[in-house]
Amino acid sequence: MPDKSAATLYFPDEPVQPRLVSPFRGPKTVKSLESLGEIYDTRAAYMVCDYQHSIGNYICDADGNLYLDVYAQIASIPLGYNNPALIEIAKSPEMIDAIVNRPALGNFPSTEWEQILREGLMAAAPPGLDKIWTALSGSDANECAYKAAFIYHRLQQRGKGVDFSDAEKTSTMLNSAPGSPDLAILSFEKAFHGRLFGSLSTTRSNPIHKLDIPAFKWPKAPFPALKYPIEDHEEYNRKEEDACLAALAKIIDEWNGTIAAVVVEPIQSEGGDNHATPYFFQQVREITKQKGVLLIVDEVQTGVAATGTFWAHEQWQLPSPPDMVTFSKKFQAAGFFYELDDLRPQQPFRQFNTWCGDPSKALIARGIVKEVKDKDLVAQTARVGDYLYNALAELQTKYPAKMSNLRGKGRGTFIAWDAPDVDARNQFLLDMKAVGVNIGGCGAHSVRLRPTLVFEEKHADLLVKAIEAVFSK
Amino acid sequence: MPDKSAATLYFPDEPVQPRLVSPFRGPKTVKSLESLGEIYDTRAAYMVCDYQHSIGNYICDADGNLYLDVYAQIASIPLGYNNPALIEIAKSPEMIDAIVNRPALGNFPSTEWEQILREGLMAAAPPGLDKIWTALSGSDANECAYKAAFIYHRLQQRGKGVDFSDAEKTSTMLNSAPGSPDLAILSFEKAFHGRLFGSLSTTRSNPIHKLDIPAFKWPKAPFPALKYPIEDHEEYNRKEEDACLAALAKIIDEWNGTIAAVVVEPIQSEGGDNHATPYFFQQVREITKQKGVLLIVDEVQTGVAATGTFWAHEQWQLPSPPDMVTFSKKFQAAGFFYELDDLRPQQPFRQFNTWCGDPSKALIARGIVKEVKDKDLVAQTARVGDYLYNALAELQTKYPAKMSNLRGKGRGTFIAWDAPDVDARNQFLLDMKAVGVNIGGCGAHSVRLRPTLVFEEKHADLLVKAIEAVFSK
Repeated sequence: MPDKSAATLYFPDEPVQPRLVSPFRGPKTVKSLESLGEIYDTRAAYMVCDYQHSIGNYICDADGNLYLDVYAQIASIPLGYNNPALIEIAKSPEMIDAIVNRPALGNFPSTEWEQILREGLMAAAPPGLDKIWTALSGSDANECAYKAAFIYHRLQQRGKGVDFSDAEKTSTMLNSAPGSPDLAILSFEKAFHGRLFGSLSTTRSNPIHKLDIPAFKWPKAPFPALKYPIEDHEEYNRKEEDACLAALAKIIDEWNGTIAAVVVEPIQSEGGDNHATPYFFQQVREITKQKGVLLIVDEVQTGVAATGTFWAHEQWQLPSPPDMVTFSKKFQAAGFFYELDDLRPQQPFRQFNTWCGDPSKALIARGIVKEVKDKDLVAQTARVGDYLYNALAELQTKYPAKMSNLRGKGRGTFIAWDAPDVDARNQFLLDMKAVGVNIGGCGAHSVRLRPTLVFEEKHADLLVKAIEAVFSK
Repeated sequence: MPDKSAATLYFPDEPVQPRLVSPFRGPKTVKSLESLGEIYDTRAAYMVCDYQHSIGNYICDADGNLYLDVYAQIASIPLGYNNPALIEIAKSPEMIDAIVNRPALGNFPSTEWEQILREGLMAAAPPGLDKIWTALSGSDANECAYKAAFIYHRLQQRGKGVDFSDAEKTSTMLNSAPGSPDLAILSFEKAFHGRLFGSLSTTRSNPIHKLDIPAFKWPKAPFPALKYPIEDHEEYNRKEEDACLAALAKIIDEWNGTIAAVVVEPIQSEGGDNHATPYFFQQVREITKQKGVLLIVDEVQTGVAATGTFWAHEQWQLPSPPDMVTFSKKFQAAGFFYELDDLRPQQPFRQFNTWCGDPSKALIARGIVKEVKDKDLVAQTARVGDYLYNALAELQTKYPAKMSNLRGKGRGTFIAWDAPDVDARNQFLLDMKAVGVNIGGCGAHSVRLRPTLVFEEKHADLLVKAIEAVFSK
């Protein structure tokens, strides 16, 4: 273990192990939830948290329990709780300005906005993508990307400089074609792209996310169901991926020019940490290019250094970049990167809203980019991820009935495995809390690891020890 | 003019009038926009702003011009630029915690979250609405309200405690009925409710907001086109409103139980500051009640004290409250208030997303509520609004060819009028900048006033003087 790792530098006072002073959901938590529940929906709440006493990789609950946190606010805490570098940014005059004078960025950007973007989000832009649109959440980012795709698609059909027809202008006010065309975004089975009305129509992870909500009748393509470890099942996996690619091409053809974009996650996260190989994604890029369909890569959960590269799709070695890459979560800021000029609508006020993002979040994102670079956290996540994966692989060998389909090798700390079934998985998540680890699930019966970027070998050791304690119980 | 008005208290150093040192869009602004434009869409940008040198009701641009600002970031700056009370909140330990430890509120709310809500947003909840869901923007708030409405609608049909059918669970993964039912939200002509896919389907303000974007085929009802001043055309206006109400009732019947909610703005803002009388809204409430349709009042732009009451719909004196009231903009935080238990889905993870709002914005909202109460800014806005309206009414009499349909009497500073046509309106907005006033338009050819809540009689005097200078040019 390195002596001066990032987490040690940040958090000299981080505890050496979890500290449990009450059962999970102790009396103060229960009382808090009851009272909060009068005015606010708490039925998805796991804990009530004392963030001021959370530190680094440890989250503190209302009862004073300190849990090792490998869920990190649904994968959205980048540098640990109360990171001193981010605290300095939060105290800065720029932040105070951004909070009290929140601008409508589309109409009245600040004199600092360009510098904040260039030194922050743009300094971490995926290779080949040199422009940005900012938003507020992952769903918002994806929907803005979808809007850009639809506007782009119609621009190619209509031709540049051609005005809208009267029929378009009249019909769109009635929500009808041709002004509101029946175009589509294609997503994959088990995908998750958000919960607003457009993004939810591309989400396919779980019925409970979608039931009772009207949806656009957009198509889905099958996503490869690979055998793990991926490298031990090359022939099977290639066949599976080729079948999915053929289906994708067929659906695009069948939809006859009405699919504006394909959206895909590098690793399907909410849907169960489903992986595909670089070959699959290279072919998706190739098919979309051939068929004149845009490719949107949704890096809301995979982005910002968690997978051992800054962006997960960098590992695909694409010959040409995705058309848009969306981000949120660990960046606190949200939005999408792009390259093509035509993804910026020809007329103003089409990609637009009151705030168009939030400088206070972009300032934090700038700090995150700086820390990731200064502390070389991409390399750290890759290194710690390998270390953790190897230890978990040993556990899998030892407890094959409790852990299978371990996955995420070479993908940083973005690691998951399957429990035998949903009940066993849910019990495991509870049992882990009883030994001091906050951990999350995904898909039908998977366990996913989403630690911060300052998760080290010493934390991995504690995690593996805790899992073994639960398995051997 | 009172000696110790709110703005005087806040901003002893506010300038006494605009200060122009270069033409509108001077050399530094032009250079800034060119450079920012390489990476970020600037084609809707009016100015580049120096927020650190903006103060109170004055906005400073990159060239050092100080404009009296009666647009206030599209109606979203509540208490003036660099308000000292908000600066204190921005510096507070709670704010720093909220920024560096942003929680996933649905899963891991903080120990302080209840208090922040109760002392802040809930302390300003509309009468009768005692629960809240938090979001990130006006569009997001409206879409969350729409989701609540659809889930509620299906719950009433399905019955409580009845599980989803297999057909529902299967079909929703295909975006099809019965799981993804073809239900609708009804909105009004010229309405604006946002720009995400669901909210955009209820927006009817301008084709440019909607063109090329697929839409749900949801219906619209006519919104009254009243004659102003409203009180001088009672008979005409009542007839117009009755016709619209009859049309509304007819459309709901024709849609045969598939309309989950009606959404309406108290004053249609983007669509042209179109007013209706309390009678109209009372009848809308009555019709929706009778027909078992929910009523969502969109107070994203009208809310938070601008209209002379905290919420504009308080002026309707409804016998029973709206089912949901949405908010954003001046509150910085966003979301919706509600009363009915059934608007909270029976199962967790249906109304849900990663962040479910943002405590840093809720902290600012708490500060805004406190300042509005402490400084009695609702009364101030009502008083200053009356003062301003009367002065503008005189101008209208003097310049009838340049200003007509003055409206917003008794609605605080939420005042608008019509220019002769779109070109005259746009020229007027530019001419006003040339005399030092930042002012906005709406609808086809209207001018709208959206000053902050710390706008005083002395600012109204400057504004009226500037308008007259432009009119008499």
